[in-house]
Amino acid sequence: MGEFLRNSWYCAGWGADLSDKPIGIKIIGEDLVLFRTSDGSAVALAGRCPHRFAPLAQGKVIGDVIQCCYHGLQFDRNGACTLNPHGQGKIPPRAHTRSYPLVERNGALWVWMGDPAAAREDQIIDLYFCGGAEGWAGLTGYLKIKADYQLVIDNLLDLTHGTYLHPDTVGVDPEHSLGSSLVYDFKTEGTTVHSNYSFFNSPPTALFKPFFHSERGDIFAFMRWEPAGALILDISTTELGMAKGTGVQIPSAHFIVPETDNSCHYFFALYRNVELDDEEKTRAMGAIAAKAFVEEDEPVIHDCYEMMNGEDFFDLEPAILETDVAGIQARRILSKLIRAERRQIADADA
Amino acid sequence: MGEFLRNSWYCAGWGADLSDKPIGIKIIGEDLVLFRTSDGSAVALAGRCPHRFAPLAQGKVIGDVIQCCYHGLQFDRNGACTLNPHGQGKIPPRAHTRSYPLVERNGALWVWMGDPAAAREDQIIDLYFCGGAEGWAGLTGYLKIKADYQLVIDNLLDLTHGTYLHPDTVGVDPEHSLGSSLVYDFKTEGTTVHSNYSFFNSPPTALFKPFFHSERGDIFAFMRWEPAGALILDISTTELGMAKGTGVQIPSAHFIVPETDNSCHYFFALYRNVELDDEEKTRAMGAIAAKAFVEEDEPVIHDCYEMMNGEDFFDLEPAILETDVAGIQARRILSKLIRAERRQIADADA
Amino acid sequence: MGEFLRNSWYCAGWGADLSDKPIGIKIIGEDLVLFRTSDGSAVALAGRCPHRFAPLAQGKVIGDVIQCCYHGLQFDRNGACTLNPHGQGKIPPRAHTRSYPLVERNGALWVWMGDPAAAREDQIIDLYFCGGAEGWAGLTGYLKIKADYQLVIDNLLDLTHGTYLHPDTVGVDPEHSLGSSLVYDFKTEGTTVHSNYSFFNSPPTALFKPFFHSERGDIFAFMRWEPAGALILDISTTELGMAKGTGVQIPSAHFIVPETDNSCHYFFALYRNVELDDEEKTRAMGAIAAKAFVEEDEPVIHDCYEMMNGEDFFDLEPAILETDVAGIQARRILSKLIRAERRQIADADA
Ligand code: FES
Ligand code: FES
Ligand code: FES
Repeated sequence: MGEFLRNSWYCAGWGADLSDKPIGIKIIGEDLVLFRTSDGSAVALAGRCPHRFAPLAQGKVIGDVIQCCYHGLQFDRNGACTLNPHGQGKIPPRAHTRSYPLVERNGALWVWMGDPAAAREDQIIDLYFCGGAEGWAGLTGYLKIKADYQLVIDNLLDLTHGTYLHPDTVGVDPEHSLGSSLVYDFKTEGTTVHSNYSFFNSPPTALFKPFFHSERGDIFAFMRWEPAGALILDISTTELGMAKGTGVQIPSAHFIVPETDNSCHYFFALYRNVELDDEEKTRAMGAIAAKAFVEEDEPVIHDCYEMMNGEDFFDLEPAILETDVAGIQARRILSKLIRAERRQIADADA
Repeated sequence: MGEFLRNSWYCAGWGADLSDKPIGIKIIGEDLVLFRTSDGSAVALAGRCPHRFAPLAQGKVIGDVIQCCYHGLQFDRNGACTLNPHGQGKIPPRAHTRSYPLVERNGALWVWMGDPAAAREDQIIDLYFCGGAEGWAGLTGYLKIKADYQLVIDNLLDLTHGTYLHPDTVGVDPEHSLGSSLVYDFKTEGTTVHSNYSFFNSPPTALFKPFFHSERGDIFAFMRWEPAGALILDISTTELGMAKGTGVQIPSAHFIVPETDNSCHYFFALYRNVELDDEEKTRAMGAIAAKAFVEEDEPVIHDCYEMMNGEDFFDLEPAILETDVAGIQARRILSKLIRAERRQIADADA
Repeated sequence: MGEFLRNSWYCAGWGADLSDKPIGIKIIGEDLVLFRTSDGSAVALAGRCPHRFAPLAQGKVIGDVIQCCYHGLQFDRNGACTLNPHGQGKIPPRAHTRSYPLVERNGALWVWMGDPAAAREDQIIDLYFCGGAEGWAGLTGYLKIKADYQLVIDNLLDLTHGTYLHPDTVGVDPEHSLGSSLVYDFKTEGTTVHSNYSFFNSPPTALFKPFFHSERGDIFAFMRWEPAGALILDISTTELGMAKGTGVQIPSAHFIVPETDNSCHYFFALYRNVELDDEEKTRAMGAIAAKAFVEEDEPVIHDCYEMMNGEDFFDLEPAILETDVAGIQARRILSKLIRAERRQIADADA
């Protein structure tokens, strides 16, 4: 397994999808099990039973504990074994599994994969439009991408691919994305990278068309990345010449979570600030997202990964264009954070 | 390939399934071909043609020899090439394949994977109820398990999993498997491990129900393991308070044979001492076995193996319960035998 | 990836199958993209976009350039980037992909994988019957073989397997392939290996039967191999006692091209010198080729490869028969050429 940032909140799913039926998920190479206890609170434990290694995700939640499917040991929210149903019922000290800090906020579930003492909830990215927030309607979804997660971050921080890969869904058509009608603005603030695109005097994309009724508008697509893999795309189409923040907004969240070296989870949310009660249009948005992410992005990202043949990104000496600034910046920040973390762990061990 | 015990009889199949149509099987990483010659005797040869490596299992038995499918070389039961149909027909010394000692007994085929000089037929486990033995009726079967074979032995030596994994097939329901109605008895005799369970005053399991007509009985489930992977479960349900050995008996054989590091063969036999002529009930037993082994055991054992991520069992520091004594004991005996064998081979080489 | 001969012309496909729709192919472990420019000439470039590694085979040919599907960079036939559609449009020096020498001749496409300065077109094997040559009719085809390519060369240089593996398609039946009616002649000229079989007084094979109308004839099957993987089978069936070169000829080409260590491309062409306009008979020839190569050869060669367990051919100490001379000779020549090439590269580097 490669080196991942441990001290980071990783999205582990959407709260609405979690019940007392346990869900297994692998994050940065570690198996977790997620479930809700009887009081509705969400719990994340190491997913491997400490007895004979059965996946706890195959188990059953009974009140506040999860019971392993294999020999019936029970574990509480702290990972402590509370029942050995066999023999004298003695519980050996090793019958204990790890518990991960978990925060449920704005409809998303976040787990902290690093040192629990370092977990700070205020570092969780702000998901203002999700989880039933007033004035927004939309949907959440998931796909698995068979590629190193950094390739997905590259993809999202460089929206110029929309024109070529997504002409019928979320991309702007070529003649408008070129030349003077498009302004880029890349900037880094601390460990946050901004990749802002403004397309002036453009026809709306297929995603906006059902909501934006003029022939042309100004599109502001402001992408923000925070380590390790959280991105928010604040995108709006305004009437020509109007300020960003007016008009139709379709913000989206893109949480890219490493599963293994060669696969990642992609949790997405897509919301809008207009026609909130039109379920049909929500379904149409979902169909466009599915086409863009599943049919257009995923295969190309996977192909790129295959083409890399397991080699390091920078070792392959990629051509770096002006429009790659944000992606390269994010890679550098991430790599610096990971190195710092390793050093810290090495120092603590020494 | 990991380290396996070589000086051991491994079950290679059920005699009734073998004809003059050759069968390929991989055991402890080695390819074998099995077939019957014209006199009906079973033969085991190395499965790779010494010429250009075609699988002999794709070949054709002609009288007493097997003819390779690729260029037609023929080999006898000792692995000697008896015909080269090409050119002058010269047979080079390398045109020879290994022959493995094979014993057919009580309906099972046993091959000896080690030094032929060390093969002792009296070490083959006693399969008293199989192969047409008087007073028994039943069936044999096979499944492949995608996991290290030792996890399957663990599974079989710890029958407490029945309650959780097999409640509707071969397991006893929870309230009776707990507490004073259950007695365990684990013991080791030489290299044989016994794992004996007695459930007093229990309703019969689903497997016994068609044959045992009282509401409750005493269940004696005596499991015996002999290295490398042979297990016999001597199980009976008796009227309350009657001695073990009376009542309905449904003994079973479980031959767990390593194929590779991450897969094994599971040959099973399931017999009974009552209602011998009821074919319908034999089919029902088969259906229960299929459900228990294929649908319940296999997926969990495979999952456990996946969860281990290729790491060593003891390195993962499993929680060891009282009920794990037999499984742990078997692992220790096996590992000791393998080490001794390696030493012996190293000494012989030196 | 293993060691392959680089300074060699490898068949990369049939010209008739190439259009302006790009085709991706991996040769000796390297990804290539092939396409035709607007003037119809065929181009071979490294298949990985130097920007973010998308497969150029997913791109689109626009006039004389290929446009990457991901962010739209365009590359010309020399691999130079001619357009960056983003920002100021600057083209960084790394935005360049490798171009491979490509020759289209007699209907086949040949790429040179080594030092371009060493490419000599006169080294391309003569394919006199293909590409619309006067007096010939036939078909071309392709299959992928999941095995080391040298096993396929072995297969083709030792036609004795026809009797056992192809009795109903391209093989001669056993009683005629044995004994005095068959003459072998193996010889090596420079780096070319000849494996010539003459079957006197034989019934025609299934492939010849529709064209050769006598009960028996003389079959001359002359196979020629040139490194790395080009084979021509010059085969004819003549009236008894007539000279080779008279009668029905069904020459075939077999271009075996390593894809990876464990897979190869098999491009074949099968032509005849009679009944040129009978399309139905061309289809029948194609069906026989498909059965012989796809259903009979491929599975056995793949099985042989699996049986080798990743070990070296000679380390497995294969039995070597008289009829293996040609195959062994080809292996030795190839290995010598590869060693010489490595030395040359090492010397140049030193
Ligand atoms: S593996 Fe979980 S209780 Fe045994
Ligand atoms: S591979 Fe068996 S005869 Fe050639
Ligand atoms: S990957 Fe080819 S243009 Fe970006």
